[in-house]
Amino acid sequence: MKFLTFEYEDATYYGVKVKREESAWILPKLFADFGEEDNYPKTLLEGISTYHTLDFQEIVRKLVEKANDTENPERYKAPFNDIKFLAPVTPPNNVIALGRNYKKHAEEMNNKADSLYVFTKAASSLAGDEAVIPNHQDITKELDYEGELAVVIGKQAWKIDSSMALDYIYGYTIINDITARDVQREHAQAFLSKNLKGSSPMGPFIVTKDELPNPEQTSIVTKVNDEIRQDGSTDDMVLKIADLIAEISKYITLEPGDVIATGTPSGVGAGMNPPQYLAPGDEIRISINGIGTLTTHIEK
Amino acid sequence: MKFLTFEYEDATYYGVKVKREESAWILPKLFADFGEEDNYPKTLLEGISTYHTLDFQEIVRKLVEKANDTENPERYKAPFNDIKFLAPVTPPNNVIALGRNYKKHAEEMNNKADSLYVFTKAASSLAGDEAVIPNHQDITKELDYEGELAVVIGKQAWKIDSSMALDYIYGYTIINDITARDVQREHAQAFLSKNLKGSSPMGPFIVTKDELPNPEQTSIVTKVNDEIRQDGSTDDMVLKIADLIAEISKYITLEPGDVIATGTPSGVGAGMNPPQYLAPGDEIRISINGIGTLTTHIEK
Repeated sequence: MKFLTFEYEDATYYGVKVKREESAWILPKLFADFGEEDNYPKTLLEGISTYHTLDFQEIVRKLVEKANDTENPERYKAPFNDIKFLAPVTPPNNVIALGRNYKKHAEEMNNKADSLYVFTKAASSLAGDEAVIPNHQDITKELDYEGELAVVIGKQAWKIDSSMALDYIYGYTIINDITARDVQREHAQAFLSKNLKGSSPMGPFIVTKDELPNPEQTSIVTKVNDEIRQDGSTDDMVLKIADLIAEISKYITLEPGDVIATGTPSGVGAGMNPPQYLAPGDEIRISINGIGTLTTHIEK
Repeated sequence: MKFLTFEYEDATYYGVKVKREESAWILPKLFADFGEEDNYPKTLLEGISTYHTLDFQEIVRKLVEKANDTENPERYKAPFNDIKFLAPVTPPNNVIALGRNYKKHAEEMNNKADSLYVFTKAASSLAGDEAVIPNHQDITKELDYEGELAVVIGKQAWKIDSSMALDYIYGYTIINDITARDVQREHAQAFLSKNLKGSSPMGPFIVTKDELPNPEQTSIVTKVNDEIRQDGSTDDMVLKIADLIAEISKYITLEPGDVIATGTPSGVGAGMNPPQYLAPGDEIRISINGIGTLTTHIEK
């Protein structure tokens, strides 16, 4: 199942894409007309937090079935052509992001991948698919992309053994961990360089984990203006997904809806010779098999 | 005005302390019985986000007046003896925290205070006044306190000039930036060491800015088991409050309810000779003139 959050007809909704339809079933409308409770989840985060993963999918499946049986199911759908994609969720603890989790990327940045490098990307830097983000020329000359697989947490996780960790996952999405490299060099902590407005595009969908059976062996391809820059596989991660959740949850309590950006493969602009940074008007497309493509436009 | 968030009779409320009363007016109950709108703010964060600072204080003042005129005003109050304090707000972008913003503290840690050192403290690490937090002996041998003045943002701030910055403040509170020093040394990024469960006590109140006219010249005193450890003044900050907001907002979009922990003065446990770390059963009390005292207990 593919969940999304979007703007449509001047309101914000969450929804679900089914089959090959290029539209979203508007879930708050389905809950209002066919649901059994008045107190239904108003956001995708609430849906993820309230229900066990499989229960929520089952509820949604039934709601879509009921809507589909009405005379005019189209009134419950928002065509993708008419919506603005937003980040699917706003994670309760910012996006928890990993640096240096692909060996070749650590090498291209002259870093070592020898200990966990964890920072956060704030809600105020989130953006959706097809977002046009500021070019930030006033603050950086070295704006860079990082294509990443992101894990969405489904239930509270604290000190979880890696053998149990996959059980705590709700699904997966794509993140572009946009970074101002000159700001990153200037400040020991990665927060300022990683949180410029619009620098955390996420989406377009959260794909439930049943639809991505091999997240640890899936390809990540990042293109800038159709030129392939990153052509990696999650197979090259230093810490695999289950180990990441185990390691992070030794320290931090992860909540439902939390998002872990698992690091980027080699091929970022800063690692090229000479470096190739993002310019006004550039388009970045990150594709992960089974999730889709996240597109970001840099303002002209 | 002093705002707080708390548990009382099995529910979570926000409220306001007036005058010298050791109790909170339960604001959701006042809004429900005397408010003009059905759609009133359900949390303190919503109150801060919905209304201009002064408007919200005026609305609250009138609600308290109306409740006070009823036959039994006590039914609208929760005595402090019967409540559990929670962190007053959950900031939208985690707590944005400064390191190395007091020169003497940077020196005691063998660091330089030469560039902004900004990391975040997550919602899942928040705690309220009088919280008993885990002793974390399984993960650290060097748990340490940091008493800090925290600024609460009142309206969205992006690229704000320092001359205008104070206008974007809602009020002030106290934060204990509890840190696992050994974890901090092991990881270049401060997130893991600063976000153990319960390691961000905040409160007891958010004091509106009109009640703290000189935030840049106020004392911070931290005691561990009645021994004075930190005896500083915000006057010693490297970057003053207005400059901090200006600098951070060059990069990050601050939202209403966001909290900036402004750094700690010298006198942390790691800076003592020999170092004195927190032990099970310890009690930390951080006092800031005009706000009050934030007390934290380390689990025995």
